[in-house]
Amino acid sequence: MSNTNDNLALVLSDAIQNNQFDDALVAIKGLRPVDLADVLEQLEPSLGWRLLERLPDRAEVFTYFEPEQQVRLAREFPRATLAALVSEMPADERTDLFKRFDQNQRDALLPALAQAEREDIRKLSAYVEGTAGALMTSDYAVLRKDMTVAEALASLRTEAPDAETIYQAYVIDKKRKLLGVVSLRDLILADLGKSIKELMTSDVVSGLVTDDQEDIAKKIARYDLLALPIADERGVLTGIVTYDDAMDVVSEEVTEDIHKSAGVSTIAGNLKDATIGLLYRKRIFWLILLVFGNLFSGAGIAHFEDIIAANIVLVFFLPLLVDSGGNAGSQSATLMVRALATGEVVMRDWLYLIGREALVALALGCTMALAVSLLGYIRGDSTIALVLALSMVSIVMIGCMIGMSLPFVLSKFNFDPASASAPLITSVCDATGVVIYLFIASQLLDDLAVVPI
Amino acid sequence: MSNTNDNLALVLSDAIQNNQFDDALVAIKGLRPVDLADVLEQLEPSLGWRLLERLPDRAEVFTYFEPEQQVRLAREFPRATLAALVSEMPADERTDLFKRFDQNQRDALLPALAQAEREDIRKLSAYVEGTAGALMTSDYAVLRKDMTVAEALASLRTEAPDAETIYQAYVIDKKRKLLGVVSLRDLILADLGKSIKELMTSDVVSGLVTDDQEDIAKKIARYDLLALPIADERGVLTGIVTYDDAMDVVSEEVTEDIHKSAGVSTIAGNLKDATIGLLYRKRIFWLILLVFGNLFSGAGIAHFEDIIAANIVLVFFLPLLVDSGGNAGSQSATLMVRALATGEVVMRDWLYLIGREALVALALGCTMALAVSLLGYIRGDSTIALVLALSMVSIVMIGCMIGMSLPFVLSKFNFDPASASAPLITSVCDATGVVIYLFIASQLLDDLAVVPI
Repeated sequence: MSNTNDNLALVLSDAIQNNQFDDALVAIKGLRPVDLADVLEQLEPSLGWRLLERLPDRAEVFTYFEPEQQVRLAREFPRATLAALVSEMPADERTDLFKRFDQNQRDALLPALAQAEREDIRKLSAYVEGTAGALMTSDYAVLRKDMTVAEALASLRTEAPDAETIYQAYVIDKKRKLLGVVSLRDLILADLGKSIKELMTSDVVSGLVTDDQEDIAKKIARYDLLALPIADERGVLTGIVTYDDAMDVVSEEVTEDIHKSAGVSTIAGNLKDATIGLLYRKRIFWLILLVFGNLFSGAGIAHFEDIIAANIVLVFFLPLLVDSGGNAGSQSATLMVRALATGEVVMRDWLYLIGREALVALALGCTMALAVSLLGYIRGDSTIALVLALSMVSIVMIGCMIGMSLPFVLSKFNFDPASASAPLITSVCDATGVVIYLFIASQLLDDLAVVPI
Repeated sequence: MSNTNDNLALVLSDAIQNNQFDDALVAIKGLRPVDLADVLEQLEPSLGWRLLERLPDRAEVFTYFEPEQQVRLAREFPRATLAALVSEMPADERTDLFKRFDQNQRDALLPALAQAEREDIRKLSAYVEGTAGALMTSDYAVLRKDMTVAEALASLRTEAPDAETIYQAYVIDKKRKLLGVVSLRDLILADLGKSIKELMTSDVVSGLVTDDQEDIAKKIARYDLLALPIADERGVLTGIVTYDDAMDVVSEEVTEDIHKSAGVSTIAGNLKDATIGLLYRKRIFWLILLVFGNLFSGAGIAHFEDIIAANIVLVFFLPLLVDSGGNAGSQSATLMVRALATGEVVMRDWLYLIGREALVALALGCTMALAVSLLGYIRGDSTIALVLALSMVSIVMIGCMIGMSLPFVLSKFNFDPASASAPLITSVCDATGVVIYLFIASQLLDDLAVVPI
């Protein structure tokens, strides 16, 4: 498919440069808007817009462009064409685009728009990013409670071309307060003479404009909704969030959590388009923190310098013991962060989970202790084997406790639990691991400390 | 909400034990099915089913129970009640439940079901887990191409109570081959006399019963579909996958990927319900592998024993250098695994991304080298600082290359790229890191090797 796209892009470039737009339109016949957007994104913006403006569904195709591409392409449009295209876009997409424009572009666009659209952009762009208000669209279908089903269907027929969905229609009073919801399915099944008041569900699942977008997405998923109505603080219906926008939010949040787990700050947008400078900035923080975190393990090692010098064999197992705590701890943290993110675990489960984790960690630690003491016996002696076994059990148990608790603690203090990243767990477990290992060694190997190898 | 649920569960237990079902029904009035399921799951199964069987929407409530709870509760139902409940369930949920039953439960249930339902279960349960066939439902709305819009609407009115969605209706011929799709929105907007043939979209996005469920979910997300029709190898329409089931698949796959990234084998179901034994088994594999992976770093250290004994200061920085490669490599792997999972990066981007990663790694490595050589100079001397700086740059660059390439290599050989887990990267980077560090040290500190500190 990608190769086909490359060829198609070449064919289109040629056709547009020679003003053979009919040929270009034939070449893209049957392509779905999202696929067409993929092809047009590969063209020079100056060529792309000349084909785009000739498409009947140009606004829909345009919404599938990557955000940066939208802004780049918008610069090529003559002002009137841009205004026409922007008017055809869904209200939420239009606002997102507007927010990405610089002041010059905004000043050029606004006067060319109709009063209603200007007002709509002004309202929607006022909401804080990450809230329901910034996610919602103002294109929704409304009904009055005294309508009959027949009247309601007639009303949807006239509203449908603009509304983002007509499968859910919202019943409002004169002050636009939300009274209920009716699905198109219910309307189709009901008697034409029945009143909307009788048919509607008045106990509506809804959200507030100030709600976090992640909570909105969770609600939509939990109740299997097609759209969630959003009210302002006075209970006035101001927009809806559709399930597909909610799913995009979930996907972004998941990417963010996954990146955090590896100690990478959030990278907005496409990895492929990220610059070297951006990637560097997003990754260096945790790595440098780790370097300075080493001051602690280094200090631990310095404290036990004599015992190491006397028993170089201890060094063989240092990377392993240090890693084991970090790895087991990262497993715990990952399980917990994901369970908190999906909502299957809540704060009050903490004590139960910690208790169970202690037992799991004990079992893991004992198994690993068995393995490592075998290696220790082969390379050292039975005392070394004992030191390794005791250290391994302690280090794994402490690593797991840290890994399991940290996400809860972060969550308790309103930090994102996903910040309990692998590098953080590693840094903390490193220092503790080194100290535990060398402390146990110094106790058991005390007699040998004066005998250099 | 959780505390309210606990109280409500107590109230319900009491009422049911005293046969006060009217009181129980009043107490749960207004609760939505998914919320009600949460409460009923807390009751003893023997009490739970006595209330559940009295609910008008019992089948819907039952579908929201956790899978294991469904099976446990089903044991309490008298055979006739179970058969009635199962008949009311959507075809896909019904089949999933049946597959979880043991042979005794299956044998008891089947004769109590109607012929059509038995046949439906038999067909749907034959598909391999993880395919579109196992995910789809057979409750969908169909139309004929020679119907008028008025006839189509009338037909949907009679079909709607059973179909999982009527917002998309599928146009089929006499052999049930898929000819096109019509949305309810289009039907509502069209002239009542218009024919379905004229109205339908004949270029339908569809899937095959054998398609991977992840691909199905990606298609639904890409084209913003409410449902995707699924055909068998002869092009016969056999089911649909709805967007909400697709989103559940995405969520499961994400959890699986995240767990794999921490070296935890897939844990199906709820973390809270996982037993200690299960958690142990899912986590021990990578941890033990890591222990034996240490044979290589241990061998590396043994090879350079003399240089360590002569320069104990080298040990101070061993955990840090070893971790740095693993951490930087895990960052690269995480970025790549996620980008491959969302489809924003494909195989042919490999060379470009590796090239860019080399530059990012160089920048990261140099910054970290600067930091660590500062620490090295304070604790050791300028030669130690040089050893640390050179080692850090090499280790970080090699770690990043491994982290970035491994997901591609795994993907190329049809393994899941998410298996490029942090513990694997750590193990590999450990051994290489140790060898690089001590090799560089042995070259630069050669002259000092004979001078013990």
